[in-house]
Amino acid sequence: MLEELKKLVCEANRDLPKYGLVTFTWGNVSALDRECGYFVIKPSGVEYDKLTPEDMVVVDLNNKKVEGRYNPSSDTATHAELYKAFPEIGGIVHTHSTYATSWAQAGRSIPCYGTTHADYIYGEVPCVRCLFAEEIAEAYEENTGHLIVNEFKRLCKDPVSVPAVLCQNHGPFTWGKDAKDAVHNAVVLEEVARMAYLAECINHHIQPAPQELQDKHYYRKHGANAYYGQGEQ
Amino acid sequence: MLEELKKLVCEANRDLPKYGLVTFTWGNVSALDRECGYFVIKPSGVEYDKLTPEDMVVVDLNNKKVEGRYNPSSDTATHAELYKAFPEIGGIVHTHSTYATSWAQAGRSIPCYGTTHADYIYGEVPCVRCLFAEEIAEAYEENTGHLIVNEFKRLCKDPVSVPAVLCQNHGPFTWGKDAKDAVHNAVVLEEVARMAYLAECINHHIQPAPQELQDKHYYRKHGANAYYGQGEQ
Amino acid sequence: MLEELKKLVCEANRDLPKYGLVTFTWGNVSALDRECGYFVIKPSGVEYDKLTPEDMVVVDLNNKKVEGRYNPSSDTATHAELYKAFPEIGGIVHTHSTYATSWAQAGRSIPCYGTTHADYIYGEVPCVRCLFAEEIAEAYEENTGHLIVNEFKRLCKDPVSVPAVLCQNHGPFTWGKDAKDAVHNAVVLEEVARMAYLAECINHHIQPAPQELQDKHYYRKHGANAYYGQGEQ
Amino acid sequence: MLEELKKLVCEANRDLPKYGLVTFTWGNVSALDRECGYFVIKPSGVEYDKLTPEDMVVVDLNNKKVEGRYNPSSDTATHAELYKAFPEIGGIVHTHSTYATSWAQAGRSIPCYGTTHADYIYGEVPCVRCLFAEEIAEAYEENTGHLIVNEFKRLCKDPVSVPAVLCQNHGPFTWGKDAKDAVHNAVVLEEVARMAYLAECINHHIQPAPQELQDKHYYRKHGANAYYGQGEQ
Repeated sequence: MLEELKKLVCEANRDLPKYGLVTFTWGNVSALDRECGYFVIKPSGVEYDKLTPEDMVVVDLNNKKVEGRYNPSSDTATHAELYKAFPEIGGIVHTHSTYATSWAQAGRSIPCYGTTHADYIYGEVPCVRCLFAEEIAEAYEENTGHLIVNEFKRLCKDPVSVPAVLCQNHGPFTWGKDAKDAVHNAVVLEEVARMAYLAECINHHIQPAPQELQDKHYYRKHGANAYYGQGEQ
Repeated sequence: MLEELKKLVCEANRDLPKYGLVTFTWGNVSALDRECGYFVIKPSGVEYDKLTPEDMVVVDLNNKKVEGRYNPSSDTATHAELYKAFPEIGGIVHTHSTYATSWAQAGRSIPCYGTTHADYIYGEVPCVRCLFAEEIAEAYEENTGHLIVNEFKRLCKDPVSVPAVLCQNHGPFTWGKDAKDAVHNAVVLEEVARMAYLAECINHHIQPAPQELQDKHYYRKHGANAYYGQGEQ
Repeated sequence: MLEELKKLVCEANRDLPKYGLVTFTWGNVSALDRECGYFVIKPSGVEYDKLTPEDMVVVDLNNKKVEGRYNPSSDTATHAELYKAFPEIGGIVHTHSTYATSWAQAGRSIPCYGTTHADYIYGEVPCVRCLFAEEIAEAYEENTGHLIVNEFKRLCKDPVSVPAVLCQNHGPFTWGKDAKDAVHNAVVLEEVARMAYLAECINHHIQPAPQELQDKHYYRKHGANAYYGQGEQ
Repeated sequence: MLEELKKLVCEANRDLPKYGLVTFTWGNVSALDRECGYFVIKPSGVEYDKLTPEDMVVVDLNNKKVEGRYNPSSDTATHAELYKAFPEIGGIVHTHSTYATSWAQAGRSIPCYGTTHADYIYGEVPCVRCLFAEEIAEAYEENTGHLIVNEFKRLCKDPVSVPAVLCQNHGPFTWGKDAKDAVHNAVVLEEVARMAYLAECINHHIQPAPQELQDKHYYRKHGANAYYGQGEQ
């Protein structure tokens, strides 16, 4: 079942090491078929260069395995919560990519310092708090998903224009319309995190980019009046 | 038309990922034929490894497309302004290369800390301010070009001896006698930006290199008394 | 003798440059056969790409060469002390990998700032002091081993859950159940050291990750209740 | 003439980009034949991947070209001065490698923070001052050589145990018994410079490694009582 989606998810997972986002097995990609309500996700702890489409695991939105000989990623329940709360998304990525994870470890949201960030992410990338001890004990991965969703609501963030989040002391999640788009955003986030770190080192009194510049670049690429690319990007 | 120039511009664009200056489609190279007054530029949002000479777009200096099936780079109007104001240049590069962009995000000009910089760029690399809201709303890309040109005039900078600029909260533009030379200067700028960042971390009280050393290295490579290289470099 | 182990140790040594952990000959891997009480170790100063299984040196736990045409690694006596004191380990790695060595040069233990660290190493990676002049003069490499062992006892660290140490002004040692596992931990340590450095730069008031999060991630992967991976990882 | 030496020098020059020490043509290697008093050096401004042994230039110790169709490196006179003053050396390298050059731009000598440094370089790597305006005007490259030699005398540094120097606001020179050994030391210097930078970031109150540890590591590898390697390294 979902053979086409399995291929795409397998390929997206294999793109993680290609883009330098993962060491060993430290990351996973999933994609959802909204019609049947199942998503396809990487098996837990299997190396990327050995992954085949048949190794992918099919799970429903209640985290029940539907098909597959392997255990799904240990982060599966977080993926499920995001799919349920963010109806526009079709793919999710979790990594421990170096710079994004370092911001998460530092417990800081990434300010928008320039157009590289503004081209893809509207405003800062929020860093959500650590889970409390009870939340960890009760259902760690699921509660991670709840927390992200609740924080996006509280901050009035639109998950389409802010396709990334940092979990404090842990690492980033990114998403997109499909698996490939979510990986694209993971690459963007890592480079944005790197440049924000460097820019702060170069100017200790740095300020975010002016709002009008952020708007210009975001809306140059997104929405009805976009004019970047070839029209259907 | 301009088949030879298209080949050179295509190759120069494909050199951007080779030199590690771009992620995805984040950069563009153009070159001008001063005889006919047209320039050739990368199509917007197309990936480098798929670029062919036929994909290149021909544009006139008023930003009107003359030939090509694709939309030209969204930064085309900035290129045009630079070509009109700087008569000695024949190629332009825009990237979001990591270190140069980080200096731009920090809003700082890059001081000349050593001979690696002085060999190619005379004095500091200026960082021009963000556009004001009205300038952005009116004609963002064209006004970016105007601002660079006006700042070079105000600072009495010669675009031949200072073939690079940073746009605050955005990123670098470099130029040269042709597309290849402009890419060369983009590589130089990125390495110079990296070393300046590191040198400031190593010595918080760092000063620019003495003027006589900057002069020596610049004029060892450039102008009538140059003696670096094999005579025609 | 120990032909199979020699192959594994040779391969593990050759993995060091593959993972970017060594320059020239700056690192060595060994593995112990607890039945016969001999261990196999890299020859001193031989380049990785020329190493063959037959070049490996067999040594007993008193540092006496049992077989091999080369001198064993100059760090052999440190390996022997660790094998004697830590009965659960079967492989040891020493490198001068960039970030781990920089923490060692800084003389600081690496705090646990996030789950990347907590997934593999329980609590901070200790940095043991420099040897005193007499300890160096008497038996430098052997006393390095003694010091590590004594510090682990004094700090009540379990070498299975803390498979890494830094020697001040020198560099890291890691270990594991076999040579491959020890190399795995050397890669983890290097990435953890890099992220801890970056996280401190991003937040000068950073605190270690909450203990309950560290516990959750460590025990999600290790021990009786682990649920990461496919069950036998 | 000197065909064998030309091959070695050509290969050593081509190793510079392989080890990541140079961008474009920013570095040169030479080697001296002490019997005939000539040295072989890279031609100025020629790219490494096009270099052949026949392109190498033969020069005498008064900087007169003896053979070759190209101009020799513009740094030739510095090489000559070092060969004349340091009778034990047979090869010299100049690069603009990133970290070593950043220390030079910062105008700081590199302290010995650990055994990676002490294994190859005895004590700190000195950074010599910029030339004065008259010294630059008179004979820049030759006076750079004089300054290095004079500073080594003044500081009582032995060029055999300290095979590296930084020239303020410029970059590093390294040397060795032959071209290959000089390149080896250029790689060591770059890694040592990188780790010293990182170690200072990690501990703002860092101190050099204890002298007895520096001695132990240096003499474990060098001199009559060395026991690292296979005896003739």
